[in-house]
Amino acid sequence: MKEEVVVIEGTSKAAMHGGAINKGYSIMDLIFRVVAIIGTLGSAISMGTTNETLPFFTQFIRFKAQYDDLPTFTFFVVANSVVCAYLVLSIPVSIVHIINSRARISRLILIFFDAAMMALLTAGASAAAAIVYLAHKGNARANWFAICQQFNSFCERTSGSLIGSFASMVVFILLILLSASALARR
Amino acid sequence: MKEEVVVIEGTSKAAMHGGAINKGYSIMDLIFRVVAIIGTLGSAISMGTTNETLPFFTQFIRFKAQYDDLPTFTFFVVANSVVCAYLVLSIPVSIVHIINSRARISRLILIFFDAAMMALLTAGASAAAAIVYLAHKGNARANWFAICQQFNSFCERTSGSLIGSFASMVVFILLILLSASALARR
Repeated sequence: MKEEVVVIEGTSKAAMHGGAINKGYSIMDLIFRVVAIIGTLGSAISMGTTNETLPFFTQFIRFKAQYDDLPTFTFFVVANSVVCAYLVLSIPVSIVHIINSRARISRLILIFFDAAMMALLTAGASAAAAIVYLAHKGNARANWFAICQQFNSFCERTSGSLIGSFASMVVFILLILLSASALARR
Repeated sequence: MKEEVVVIEGTSKAAMHGGAINKGYSIMDLIFRVVAIIGTLGSAISMGTTNETLPFFTQFIRFKAQYDDLPTFTFFVVANSVVCAYLVLSIPVSIVHIINSRARISRLILIFFDAAMMALLTAGASAAAAIVYLAHKGNARANWFAICQQFNSFCERTSGSLIGSFASMVVFILLILLSASALARR
């Protein structure tokens, strides 16, 4: 009779220990989500507000560069905004996981959407990076000129706005790993 | 005494049932990996062997387009090759999971690397897609011309080679979901 009680106590202690670790995972999950929100929001805003008007102009043309001159940059802004909105919506779920650390289905759903959103964010960021690279270096074989020689601050701004996106991408990998660890430990 | 036996039998049946489902997940995991290997290998080969020489030439210039004229396409080939090699290396782990469906640490490691490789593959595919789009449409504001008007078969080949990559990307999302489900059911 006494042995049984000990066993049950041991099990419940182990379960409580596992629960505490899972709660820690969930809190880190929440923090990472906030970091990713800041990263994607910053990227979207800094790319979306990029424009440059050159100080010289001819009678007919004013030399002006704006982010939506290049469709890829528009996609970048849209992708970052969508991912940012998703992250804001996922925060309540993350808080529920802190309270109820044994949740299973909601974690699975979150892993699926995290993976899909990571793909979207990576697609936007690397497509924009390919265009930024082209703007800096140009391509002699395709006769594409490096526009950064004229639009200097435009190029710096667009290059800089990639950072938040790529950082958020890494955070997403960690988010997926955290959710998977919590599921494994449950 | 009899009740106890029934309870134990019930538990072991449930465990066996869970094990069978996990084995099913692991077999699907293996199949998906093979599909992704075919997709990435096909993409890498079809992009890597792309070149076109135009039938007309001047005294000094032969018009020739090759995939490595554009650094982004080189990155695409490298990314697809790396992901393909990773997938081949992950096949033994996947087979181990079919035999031992209760594995935990190895599944976690696999989820982490799957997520990282998905990011790499998506980056390569969407960067190449951005350049392919530019080659098809050009960009009037940046004075980049659509080279597809001259290099027709080159453009078709590069566009086509994106398909395998994007399909593998979707397969990776499913792979992550499968591993997470197996962890949750363990």
